Amino acid sequence: MTRYADLADDLTDAIRRGALRPGERLPSVRQACASRGVSASTVFQAYDLLEARGLIESRPRSGFFVRAPQSGVAAEPMATMPVGDTTEVAIADLVMQVLGSTRDRDVVPLGSAFPSPRLFPLADLARSGARSMRALDPDRLVEDLSAGNERLRHQIARRQTLAGIAVDPDEIVITHGAMEALDLCLRLLTRPGDIVAVESPTFYAALQALERHGLRAVEVATDPRDGVDPDALAAVLARHRVAACWLMPNFQNPLGSLMPVERKRAVVALLARHGVPLIEDDVYGELHFGATRPPPAKAFDEAGGVLHCTSFSKCLAPGYRVGWVSAGQHAPALRRLKTMTSLATAVPSQLAIAEYLVQGGFDRHLRQLRRRLEVQQQAMRAGIERHFPVGTRVSRPQGGYFLWLELPEGADALALHRQALACSISIAPGPLFSADHRLRRGLRLNFGHPPEDTRIAGALETLGQLAGRTGISAAR
Amino acid sequence: MTRYADLADDLTDAIRRGALRPGERLPSVRQACASRGVSASTVFQAYDLLEARGLIESRPRSGFFVRAPQSGVAAEPMATMPVGDTTEVAIADLVMQVLGSTRDRDVVPLGSAFPSPRLFPLADLARSGARSMRALDPDRLVEDLSAGNERLRHQIARRQTLAGIAVDPDEIVITHGAMEALDLCLRLLTRPGDIVAVESPTFYAALQALERHGLRAVEVATDPRDGVDPDALAAVLARHRVAACWLMPNFQNPLGSLMPVERKRAVVALLARHGVPLIEDDVYGELHFGATRPPPAKAFDEAGGVLHCTSFSKCLAPGYRVGWVSAGQHAPALRRLKTMTSLATAVPSQLAIAEYLVQGGFDRHLRQLRRRLEVQQQAMRAGIERHFPVGTRVSRPQGGYFLWLELPEGADALALHRQALACSISIAPGPLFSADHRLRRGLRLNFGHPPEDTRIAGALETLGQLAGRTGISAAR
Repeated sequence: MTRYADLADDLTDAIRRGALRPGERLPSVRQACASRGVSASTVFQAYDLLEARGLIESRPRSGFFVRAPQSGVAAEPMATMPVGDTTEVAIADLVMQVLGSTRDRDVVPLGSAFPSPRLFPLADLARSGARSMRALDPDRLVEDLSAGNERLRHQIARRQTLAGIAVDPDEIVITHGAMEALDLCLRLLTRPGDIVAVESPTFYAALQALERHGLRAVEVATDPRDGVDPDALAAVLARHRVAACWLMPNFQNPLGSLMPVERKRAVVALLARHGVPLIEDDVYGELHFGATRPPPAKAFDEAGGVLHCTSFSKCLAPGYRVGWVSAGQHAPALRRLKTMTSLATAVPSQLAIAEYLVQGGFDRHLRQLRRRLEVQQQAMRAGIERHFPVGTRVSRPQGGYFLWLELPEGADALALHRQALACSISIAPGPLFSADHRLRRGLRLNFGHPPEDTRIAGALETLGQLAGRTGISAAR
Repeated sequence: MTRYADLADDLTDAIRRGALRPGERLPSVRQACASRGVSASTVFQAYDLLEARGLIESRPRSGFFVRAPQSGVAAEPMATMPVGDTTEVAIADLVMQVLGSTRDRDVVPLGSAFPSPRLFPLADLARSGARSMRALDPDRLVEDLSAGNERLRHQIARRQTLAGIAVDPDEIVITHGAMEALDLCLRLLTRPGDIVAVESPTFYAALQALERHGLRAVEVATDPRDGVDPDALAAVLARHRVAACWLMPNFQNPLGSLMPVERKRAVVALLARHGVPLIEDDVYGELHFGATRPPPAKAFDEAGGVLHCTSFSKCLAPGYRVGWVSAGQHAPALRRLKTMTSLATAVPSQLAIAEYLVQGGFDRHLRQLRRRLEVQQQAMRAGIERHFPVGTRVSRPQGGYFLWLELPEGADALALHRQALACSISIAPGPLFSADHRLRRGLRLNFGHPPEDTRIAGALETLGQLAGRTGISAAR
């Protein structure tokens, strides 16, 4: 199951490091079989995957070759370099203004935060929900309040333990999606006026939460491939008294960056030395294209300072509003806060998911979903390479469903957003992701909508043309 | 359908006013038929209902007589007289400490805030949920975000219009229960440090919300029968700069008071004159024992200053976490706040309830539920009269599922709570319901658990004995 993926990952790495260069021929299937001790079909599967990733191409009767970037677009964006000051957050107006109109069916949802609901096993979930609600013990309606349904917590604990975080069901607090998880953690760990360290760029919903709680943000340099920079974080911690840190180590929104294990370990240790708790948002962790699920930072938490937040909204059950916090020592206080704030998470949603997990099929669904997202990423990257102006940089995330673009000098993503919306296309412009509204050339595009949505290819062409014009007019 | 209830209500009123006094004979069935122009069976039904209410008794071959109070317990509690200062709220610790252990199956849940889940049509809801999730259009999962499911909002608007508040579906914001509704309204209308006027006593969850938002409470004198006193409210408004008012005009928690229509009208007008918005919590409005649903204060709102909050949790679907705000002009701002805070309400819950409402059967369920609650109230009042010490006062609410007791001089409800819990009985002591922890002799008991729970009678006997001892020992 994982051999071909291992091989593909090794080759991907070699291509990215430059050990295999554009135009270079890959080992023949026979050579690869011999050197890796695997079957020919394993090699073919690996090469198929590399082709789907857009890294290699097959030439008839010649073999497989590393693909040359087709335009000046293929480079990845640069790591951000925020100035390191703390900022009062006031992002909500901009977010609502920009995203208010993106839920219209007639708008191509490239700016959406959600993947297509059609990628999820909604019929299976409906069946699980029906079965579990038929069998509901009414008294559980009261007993499951606040901490969440016991069966669901057991299922989650089992999965998390398999994924490398040993969690007791009693440490898990079920929440109304990951947004409530974040909200509760901030309430628990901060007071108004406190400073919270976040990635640059940061998911706007986290910025909105900081704004709501009267918190100040300090943004930390973040690499589109490897995530937050431990040295930059150390500098921020030395300079500011930080009350908490909020990070997405796995497939960060919007960058798609994945922190290597060593970075995760370094960041967790650094925060522990400073006594700063880490609120880890891991909602995209299951959407990895590589063979194995990347561990969350929580897996390296020896001091108990990491609150691991995630949800089923992005990987299984959008709209069900079921998330959770693995809160360790903070669990009793979080549970209490949850009871006071929203009493409980909706029982029908919890039971449907618990029953689905018990029945099995989640892993099969995840494998399909990851494969589809990887293929969709490739299609969107190809469209961007074809249509966007030279000098555009685009991320190459190994999971999730977002691409992060950096438009050429002089571009203005907010202007592009307005022009695109006039063409019934939504995008998520960079300033949404920064407390001080920088990142004017940044752009998040959602590739979570399947190619059956034929409007997407045309939308990329239109966007590319608009982006080209914007760059030129701004440069004049 | 309503004739017998009208007759019963008129007679109830006459008995409460003292126009018909204990021991007095009611009109014979024949007299009543003639004077009201109704059939004999209507009169019999009305007299049955009065008997269930514990107001009259039939004596063989003599007719029906107004029942004498069996002990010194029958008097209703006095109206509260808060001092009128504003108070910083710090109630959360006490609430959690007292209520933390009340969800255990082995504890008799007289302190619970929830009626028995067995009173609700859970099987019908499960069927509606299964049907609606099978038929789900996946795209609705995104389109229904924030404002809530369109079909559900239409059903709610229809019901509300029938109940006397003409509401457009677009003014309705679906929330994660009434608790989120209250939370969003407070966020919208207040800033930390602001003053909010509340009833005395007040539901502790509202006090917790004030605490969470850093708000100060000012408590207003409230009568156990007629609710908040408009003159006392006027005095508070004259003395303090109040940012918002939070009231439960229908079957207040914990008093059970029902504001007469004139009081509602007066309070709404008074608040409008002062430009103070009213957050109206109407979660018990459907649980009326009288013939018609009492109108919410919103029905008298000409200036658009009332935000009407309610939910399905107490009348149809506990654990589903579906509430809403009829927010009028505030709807767009509330919708936006909802999106930023919790994104959306769980879709399976919304669809199950929408489908249930479309199918019909809600009114039939409500009629049964009201009748059962009324009978259960009577049973609990009888137990209290039998077992509690002389001098105990107990409310006689016309809806909901709470009784409010005032124990004799010297009693200490917090001590009683500890003693009762040692006997596996929970109660909700008065200090939970006051920002300044007064109401030491107050006590809320839940009669929402059906007589099939045979532990209840014994629990009342135990409680009465404990209360008697407490009073005596405190008086010594």
